[in-house]
Amino acid sequence: MKLWDKGCNVNKEIEKFTVGNDYLLDQNLVKYDCAASIAHAKMLNKIGVLTKDELDEAVKKLNEIMEKGVEINPEDEDCHTAIENALGEVGKKIHTARSRNDQVMVALRLYEKSELTEIMELLKELAKVLKKDVKVPIPGYTHMQKAMPTDVKTWLKCYSDSAEDNLEILESVLKLINKSPLGSAAGFGVPVFDIDKEMTAKEMGFEKPIENPIHAQLTRGKYESNILNALTQIMFDLNKLSSDLILYNMPEFGFVSLPKEFCTGSSIMPQKKNPDVLELIRAKYHVVLAEEFKIKNIISNLISGYHRDFQETKEPVMKSIEITKACLKMMILIIKNLKINEKNCKKAMTKELYATEEVYKLVKGGMPFRDAYKKVGLKFKKLKTESSDSPSPFLGS
Amino acid sequence: MKLWDKGCNVNKEIEKFTVGNDYLLDQNLVKYDCAASIAHAKMLNKIGVLTKDELDEAVKKLNEIMEKGVEINPEDEDCHTAIENALGEVGKKIHTARSRNDQVMVALRLYEKSELTEIMELLKELAKVLKKDVKVPIPGYTHMQKAMPTDVKTWLKCYSDSAEDNLEILESVLKLINKSPLGSAAGFGVPVFDIDKEMTAKEMGFEKPIENPIHAQLTRGKYESNILNALTQIMFDLNKLSSDLILYNMPEFGFVSLPKEFCTGSSIMPQKKNPDVLELIRAKYHVVLAEEFKIKNIISNLISGYHRDFQETKEPVMKSIEITKACLKMMILIIKNLKINEKNCKKAMTKELYATEEVYKLVKGGMPFRDAYKKVGLKFKKLKTESSDSPSPFLGS
Amino acid sequence: MKLWDKGCNVNKEIEKFTVGNDYLLDQNLVKYDCAASIAHAKMLNKIGVLTKDELDEAVKKLNEIMEKGVEINPEDEDCHTAIENALGEVGKKIHTARSRNDQVMVALRLYEKSELTEIMELLKELAKVLKKDVKVPIPGYTHMQKAMPTDVKTWLKCYSDSAEDNLEILESVLKLINKSPLGSAAGFGVPVFDIDKEMTAKEMGFEKPIENPIHAQLTRGKYESNILNALTQIMFDLNKLSSDLILYNMPEFGFVSLPKEFCTGSSIMPQKKNPDVLELIRAKYHVVLAEEFKIKNIISNLISGYHRDFQETKEPVMKSIEITKACLKMMILIIKNLKINEKNCKKAMTKELYATEEVYKLVKGGMPFRDAYKKVGLKFKKLKTESSDSPSPFLGS
Amino acid sequence: MKLWDKGCNVNKEIEKFTVGNDYLLDQNLVKYDCAASIAHAKMLNKIGVLTKDELDEAVKKLNEIMEKGVEINPEDEDCHTAIENALGEVGKKIHTARSRNDQVMVALRLYEKSELTEIMELLKELAKVLKKDVKVPIPGYTHMQKAMPTDVKTWLKCYSDSAEDNLEILESVLKLINKSPLGSAAGFGVPVFDIDKEMTAKEMGFEKPIENPIHAQLTRGKYESNILNALTQIMFDLNKLSSDLILYNMPEFGFVSLPKEFCTGSSIMPQKKNPDVLELIRAKYHVVLAEEFKIKNIISNLISGYHRDFQETKEPVMKSIEITKACLKMMILIIKNLKINEKNCKKAMTKELYATEEVYKLVKGGMPFRDAYKKVGLKFKKLKTESSDSPSPFLGS
Repeated sequence: MKLWDKGCNVNKEIEKFTVGNDYLLDQNLVKYDCAASIAHAKMLNKIGVLTKDELDEAVKKLNEIMEKGVEINPEDEDCHTAIENALGEVGKKIHTARSRNDQVMVALRLYEKSELTEIMELLKELAKVLKKDVKVPIPGYTHMQKAMPTDVKTWLKCYSDSAEDNLEILESVLKLINKSPLGSAAGFGVPVFDIDKEMTAKEMGFEKPIENPIHAQLTRGKYESNILNALTQIMFDLNKLSSDLILYNMPEFGFVSLPKEFCTGSSIMPQKKNPDVLELIRAKYHVVLAEEFKIKNIISNLISGYHRDFQETKEPVMKSIEITKACLKMMILIIKNLKINEKNCKKAMTKELYATEEVYKLVKGGMPFRDAYKKVGLKFKKLKTESSDSPSPFLGS
Repeated sequence: MKLWDKGCNVNKEIEKFTVGNDYLLDQNLVKYDCAASIAHAKMLNKIGVLTKDELDEAVKKLNEIMEKGVEINPEDEDCHTAIENALGEVGKKIHTARSRNDQVMVALRLYEKSELTEIMELLKELAKVLKKDVKVPIPGYTHMQKAMPTDVKTWLKCYSDSAEDNLEILESVLKLINKSPLGSAAGFGVPVFDIDKEMTAKEMGFEKPIENPIHAQLTRGKYESNILNALTQIMFDLNKLSSDLILYNMPEFGFVSLPKEFCTGSSIMPQKKNPDVLELIRAKYHVVLAEEFKIKNIISNLISGYHRDFQETKEPVMKSIEITKACLKMMILIIKNLKINEKNCKKAMTKELYATEEVYKLVKGGMPFRDAYKKVGLKFKKLKTESSDSPSPFLGS
Repeated sequence: MKLWDKGCNVNKEIEKFTVGNDYLLDQNLVKYDCAASIAHAKMLNKIGVLTKDELDEAVKKLNEIMEKGVEINPEDEDCHTAIENALGEVGKKIHTARSRNDQVMVALRLYEKSELTEIMELLKELAKVLKKDVKVPIPGYTHMQKAMPTDVKTWLKCYSDSAEDNLEILESVLKLINKSPLGSAAGFGVPVFDIDKEMTAKEMGFEKPIENPIHAQLTRGKYESNILNALTQIMFDLNKLSSDLILYNMPEFGFVSLPKEFCTGSSIMPQKKNPDVLELIRAKYHVVLAEEFKIKNIISNLISGYHRDFQETKEPVMKSIEITKACLKMMILIIKNLKINEKNCKKAMTKELYATEEVYKLVKGGMPFRDAYKKVGLKFKKLKTESSDSPSPFLGS
Repeated sequence: MKLWDKGCNVNKEIEKFTVGNDYLLDQNLVKYDCAASIAHAKMLNKIGVLTKDELDEAVKKLNEIMEKGVEINPEDEDCHTAIENALGEVGKKIHTARSRNDQVMVALRLYEKSELTEIMELLKELAKVLKKDVKVPIPGYTHMQKAMPTDVKTWLKCYSDSAEDNLEILESVLKLINKSPLGSAAGFGVPVFDIDKEMTAKEMGFEKPIENPIHAQLTRGKYESNILNALTQIMFDLNKLSSDLILYNMPEFGFVSLPKEFCTGSSIMPQKKNPDVLELIRAKYHVVLAEEFKIKNIISNLISGYHRDFQETKEPVMKSIEITKACLKMMILIIKNLKINEKNCKKAMTKELYATEEVYKLVKGGMPFRDAYKKVGLKFKKLKTESSDSPSPFLGS
């Protein structure tokens, strides 16, 4: 039975369409909805809506559901209904002074806090494994052309440092969303009852409640878009690191090798050892990014207050969190097992990488920079002309 | 067993990550992969790779799979492997002169052609139900302000006409993608065997094969992005029509009503009858749009030839097709059951809607347009000032 | 003086904000607005609003403006106002039976038709220069790993063929937008006067008028988003071709070289010759794509009829057209001057590229494909193990 | 003369294309590039590259340029070249131990810090003007249907509170970007010279330098994408507030009125008073959002190190900053001058808004919530049926 059932039947096709896959996604929220319901029940007891016995009954059943889970059927629409129904008689009272709007939001925020914390742990592990004390030199590229010398340690350390940036970004987001929306009800607060939002917020581990109920509704999707911005930052680094690894793993470079049990083959070409895992991580950046923009657009051009459109922001968040976690785990595994091919790296350290060094030595000797730059530049130009012009048969148009 | 299995084991976590949900999505492709495999088998028989008996065996089994389906396990990776394995001994020969790359692509294209054709039928039905001969007047709005008179028939007919535009767009896309990629193999054609791409293309109902194998690979994702552009065009119209209906269904306007069995309620407010179905259709535009941009970005900044990144373009296509079909069905149902509230419509036809008419009557009488415009404009300015200034207590800052 | 000036002053800051850079962008539309105004004037003469003398006067002045241009000041807001004011007395009559809404749209459509036609010419030229009869072999890559042999001719021909696809896409869009919106006025048609939309459509070279005035308004932004989808298709090919060229131009590959006068240098490293032009073309794909996305979102979640939001769709169209033309010109220049380094290409044709060929030869000799595949696969696996394991000192964790 | 000029001419068309509008955009950076150059010069003096006289000369000239500006011609490419050339003889030395890469980045970061600080001031002012002590009741809407009572104060306060969220987000971003990239040179650090990055960072007011030079390059575009995420958060609130105001300003609601000098008219309909300014603010959200998306895609799928693609991230940042500032200024002006129509607001407070209150009163009297909900629900259902069924002639299909 739906929470809003008043004895008139909704068209079955409409119902199926509006529920969508919410009843599946909501499995992620069951334990958080229970936790929020426990906090709410305690508050209802405090303000006299639930008796001590009703509270105990509710808390006992909610703890059971947290442990054993609950089946959510399409007819239930979502976890909130399934849980309310599972509570039996006390369920009929527990929805006092709240709405599904704030219930969905508070469960989501608890879920998000927990998941972001897990992602931070993975980020820290990645930052750690990236600190490899491998002083093997490799070329630094700009414009995909050899630029100046660097080394494997510096290269990988850059991603470790950037993971620190991402941790900083995640911390800000965690702080931003650490406010309880419970008590905003349908978005305009709770009349008649004198609810205690401070109490429920504290009970659930939030820093404080969101004061203004319309503000609480405004955060739906908006806070989530900040979470997704944080996740795209992480995925961006993985996208770039994958791009590096795919290139450096090419036999033409051979700076690194993936263990062969990390590679997949071709159905037609028996010689292939493909870095599919890296290509998929690279692609997943765009998946998460599109989910971010999905949310940012769904919530636009709408007046304040709840719209059912917001339901479509749930899947992007859950999907992006799953992807980010999976990709971080993959990258940790890859970096742990990555092989550095010292011989190939050293072979790649050709003369032009040291041109700037040569310039600077002239500057140290007293020549103004621009003059030294030109002098060395002309030397390299001459070298190139000699080596390339004569033997290679160009085929221009 | 994987198509590329050479007896070395892939790391289990890597394998799970790279397969993703492909084995689930591929249920959509089973019958199309079978159809393509039948065409390929016939061609292999023609060029002497398969005997008549082997061909008959393969065709018989593939027809059985088309009818009864096939189980795809994560270990299979995809439908192509599951089907090849299900074919038994002849399966070991049928992969001659093709690659999974062109096999995936050709199955996808057959699937897309079939789905787009189905969407065209739905669009035609929508265009039909939108032609309602209801001459009830309603205000035409610009800038969300009453502008000039229109009527229900003209209003709904605009979406019917726009559905014709969408049909035109879909037809162009169908024409664009109506080329068989089979024969491009891994993206560089088939050596040794003299395959007949014309034959397989014709056999599967394509207009012609894609000539250049690298071009065939380049269409992966690119053609799909064109399909998604066509779908976003359809979804855009549904987004706008939903926006119209949501506004006109507000009691403040009351031009239309949704039947109550199309509305859903609130968990807290017993009086509510919410147009959730319309809000979700509105939101789904952004979902499909984000999927379009996902594809368009996944395929960018990559050199020619296949990359595993392309796997991530499969779900956006399938998801967007499902959404578009579902939303079209919903909108057909809604329009069929929409009620027009004649009394409210007529009441809304206030004087200012006829201001331009008044101007034009003056012009007909010989006054230049700009002069007539100013004359009528001043009259309305005066009217407004009189009616609004005195009684309403403004609260400015 | 503004078209809607009724003697009350608009706040200066508001005015500046709402005009934005429209007065600058509109220089692109001047000649098309004149052409549309000539058609409209002829029609007004036919239905008796303008005398023959007034028509002659208007046509003469509009032709002058087409030739000499007109200054558009911020106070004018846009080209339409500047032109109406420049017409003097007859200008006061010419706005009869039209609105700025349909005037903007018709001028934009004429501009778009002209620009798309120019882009088609550039595409044809690109398709032509890409047909180079250079049979030099190069490796075909999948997953950024050597896959099978191909050659320069086939590689470049793929972009030529894809340019044909783009021409097909552009033609569909040109057909879609080839309908005159003139006569839709503010979006609800023209009362009092019996205008002849067929006549003006024909006069301006459109296939036909858009019948339904609300439909005409619905196409604003929507048709433009189709134009942008077509442009992103072109830019996508340029993005991929640039990616190919940037990689193949790396000394590590050296398959192609850009002439040195096409490269730019570094402020610090005197040896650098960077392919900036290719990197910028690559990046511009994302610029155009974001502009497409911008339009598709600006027009969403709005009821039918005109909204000022649509003004923001003008710049994305103009900007994307300019970028696409510039990038096409650059790529034509580059391809014309591209040098193919035959020696490097041939050196890259290593043994593993022929593995599939080896398999197929075994198949030809009677071995089933999967067995042959495994046999050759094991051989390559053995080769790799021997060559790589012993000498290179791996540095794993 | 370009910084990398070595006496070989670049093709003029290529040059024009690669420079683009950089030379125009860079006017925004002149003073920040001077500030960074002063810090760099002091450091060069400290490490012995510049004499005290040379330093004084450089500082004097740089201060002059900061004050009077400098002309940047297309041939200069950018402000960095224009300034180096304007410095004369000492300019030839000042580029020692830095690259344009880190010079562009440091100037951008200084510019961004300054602009974000300005935006924070505007946000604070907006938050202030939104705190209006207007206790006039208005309906709260969910699903665009009357839900529960609220009031003008609570409604506007929600945006004030949300502005506080935005300030928090901006502060995090400011903290994130408050690291000096100077010293990363071309992205791989400075050889030969022992530069003092701590000193220059401190001199320019950064918290600290970015340690790892490859990390510094990785932040290009990435940090900017965080800035744009912060700006889209601000623009999102303005988008929603505009949507509220556009609806409530409709005569059908009439809760608020814009002063008439804030409205614009129509070229055809003399009665119109359109809220263009609000529609444009609403649309600008999508502009900034697309610019964010642009940056996030431009920087993807690229290996570490500088690519010229990054140049295309400059305009999106500058444009989005300009838009956000302009929209904030507009909204401050609008809110300051907004009129609240008390009579209309009160008239809109119809009975159904109090249904939840009625339920809660029953609950207070001892009835379980779900039972009370159903009781009140049935009453409203009965009321609706009576009032709407008989008189209104429905026109279904």
